[in-house]
Amino acid sequence: MTSLPLSDALFAVQRTTPLVHCITNYVAMNSTANCLLAMGASPAMLHAPEEVAEFTHLAGALSINIGTPSAAWAEGMQLAARAAQESGTPWVFDPVAVGATRYRQTLSQALLAHDPDAIRGNTSEIMTLAGLAHAGRGVDATASIDEARAAAIALARRQGCLVAMTGERDFITDGQQHWYITGGHALMPRVTTLGCALSATVAAFLAASPSMPLAAVAAAVASFAVAGQRAGQQAAGPGSFQVALLDALYQLTPDDLDQFTGLEAA
Amino acid sequence: MTSLPLSDALFAVQRTTPLVHCITNYVAMNSTANCLLAMGASPAMLHAPEEVAEFTHLAGALSINIGTPSAAWAEGMQLAARAAQESGTPWVFDPVAVGATRYRQTLSQALLAHDPDAIRGNTSEIMTLAGLAHAGRGVDATASIDEARAAAIALARRQGCLVAMTGERDFITDGQQHWYITGGHALMPRVTTLGCALSATVAAFLAASPSMPLAAVAAAVASFAVAGQRAGQQAAGPGSFQVALLDALYQLTPDDLDQFTGLEAA
Amino acid sequence: MTSLPLSDALFAVQRTTPLVHCITNYVAMNSTANCLLAMGASPAMLHAPEEVAEFTHLAGALSINIGTPSAAWAEGMQLAARAAQESGTPWVFDPVAVGATRYRQTLSQALLAHDPDAIRGNTSEIMTLAGLAHAGRGVDATASIDEARAAAIALARRQGCLVAMTGERDFITDGQQHWYITGGHALMPRVTTLGCALSATVAAFLAASPSMPLAAVAAAVASFAVAGQRAGQQAAGPGSFQVALLDALYQLTPDDLDQFTGLEAA
Repeated sequence: MTSLPLSDALFAVQRTTPLVHCITNYVAMNSTANCLLAMGASPAMLHAPEEVAEFTHLAGALSINIGTPSAAWAEGMQLAARAAQESGTPWVFDPVAVGATRYRQTLSQALLAHDPDAIRGNTSEIMTLAGLAHAGRGVDATASIDEARAAAIALARRQGCLVAMTGERDFITDGQQHWYITGGHALMPRVTTLGCALSATVAAFLAASPSMPLAAVAAAVASFAVAGQRAGQQAAGPGSFQVALLDALYQLTPDDLDQFTGLEAA
Repeated sequence: MTSLPLSDALFAVQRTTPLVHCITNYVAMNSTANCLLAMGASPAMLHAPEEVAEFTHLAGALSINIGTPSAAWAEGMQLAARAAQESGTPWVFDPVAVGATRYRQTLSQALLAHDPDAIRGNTSEIMTLAGLAHAGRGVDATASIDEARAAAIALARRQGCLVAMTGERDFITDGQQHWYITGGHALMPRVTTLGCALSATVAAFLAASPSMPLAAVAAAVASFAVAGQRAGQQAAGPGSFQVALLDALYQLTPDDLDQFTGLEAA
Repeated sequence: MTSLPLSDALFAVQRTTPLVHCITNYVAMNSTANCLLAMGASPAMLHAPEEVAEFTHLAGALSINIGTPSAAWAEGMQLAARAAQESGTPWVFDPVAVGATRYRQTLSQALLAHDPDAIRGNTSEIMTLAGLAHAGRGVDATASIDEARAAAIALARRQGCLVAMTGERDFITDGQQHWYITGGHALMPRVTTLGCALSATVAAFLAASPSMPLAAVAAAVASFAVAGQRAGQQAAGPGSFQVALLDALYQLTPDDLDQFTGLEAA
């Protein structure tokens, strides 16, 4: 296979306005909602144990991000993940800084038990998650790309899910097929929570194209790669970059993804 | 009556810098504070049961929004609403997604018992609130404008309060007089939490003009209608729209509202 | 002494990418993270008692802001402050609205017991903190600059820490040396949580230059003064100001601080 139907996946999001239930960190909430709205999806942020499962059943997809966890939120996350698992609602897990504390590792293991459809993280986070099953080791931030790649594939196979590992170059795998995505801009890591927003965007794409999850995940990542590249051409710094990125996500068309040259089999 | 003193209401906000106590959702906090500051009001966000009533007594108005509720926050909301009711401080209720879960319906009924001075919501939310008293039914999102209009009037009469129902066209009523407001821009629903920020802005206007609440609510809604229209003329997408909206709210003058042609008796 | 090595302090931040653990209010989280990233620091927001001390030990500095406190957060703040105190990690205290409620005064006293390295607040907040030790009096918002100045010096001496009191003109003291900083722009108070972001930036500078804390605090304040001035030249209102400020913080060079003329001995 030499390509993926990225433009079909974007068209599906823009046509169906998928409702994405987000349980994410406080820093990311506003920018995540704005990225989803810019792409044509419909965000909803709510987390209380009293209502969270009831809402997950209404949503097209669920995105869980553990950036600012606490006991009450962890309970809501697990109830939502279980509801998604029970109803077959696609859900995405973003294991922010899972290597930093034991609390995050315990919470992540509990969430992985509810079988996420996709995991989105940076190389450190993916390697930590992959390692949790083996020996509970911490993360080696200086790991080579090859090591991280192997960890992503192992994690995808063990969990039976998609893995999107993002950074300067992105790597996407379902355990069998692997893809690299190149694009974006050097200012992206200078704007907070773009990775968190991408995780929720992956959920929107899965909601809109449940029958082709690999293409859906790749299209979400490619959308940020293209929009990031364009935003970088207009930006004088991270402030103007963030504004231009939302505009570029809004202006993105399926044709843009048809012409995208940054996808290659890995 | 063929008009309302909108410009007087804006002038009063800009002259008195009303302190607005906001208990709002996590997504909306930053954009709400920035809209209030741009308009010339002074925002304060706090919610803890330990301090919330003490602070409500200091504020010129209170705005409560249930977008991301939880048990501890619901307790703070009720204490603040009761404090506002007791001290005659105007308060605004924003029933975000009240139709989505039973938890929100129960919380909304508890808050309505503290007699908000104004309710700001979209058509679905207003219809759900109006229906809570009758049969507790969910919301019919496909309801016609005429049905929603009747619900808004019924809600205003039952609660003895102002109702601002916003959307492509806005409808404002105190149960006796009804007004339409036209303006804004198609990009507004692509930026998150502008409705939430408008609710807090309604509170700022009520604080500054307590003796003319209908004009105050209409002026807040008209301010967003005018600023939204101007922002839309400069925007390339939702990112630049949000920036331009804050600038336009800041630049808004009483003269702008004198010249506003989008207000008509309904 | 007629100057301070401001440019060295900025260079140290840009060279070392200090990890700043922030426990801040919900309104400020996103803008704080973006200011830190723009300056070249690395932000991390987390607050849960289960993990907070473990993380503080990893961080280069800690910043605690009580803008939206609650019981669970207050516990996390105290655990983090104690961890910082034990490990000698520099930490900054931002006593938002400490004069407004008794709850904030009690929490502030508990945090002061953990010996912050710097306190950043406006004149009212600094005067309230200074008064807590004497008679627990509230704040006199109409206090003269001279009264506030004396309070800041007294607070610095009593706590053995740096105090940065910011407003139209900023005042920095370690109890012995005192400096004024002039700069910024009239739009700064029209953008929410810039003071909160400055407090976290002070923490980043302390992490990068632990051996010259007075210069570090002054350089953080001067960075905002210079960037604010530049942003104001391009801004049409608070929306475009905020964007331009992030760009200006990103573009700031040590040379800019060498040429800064707004620092004078007080």
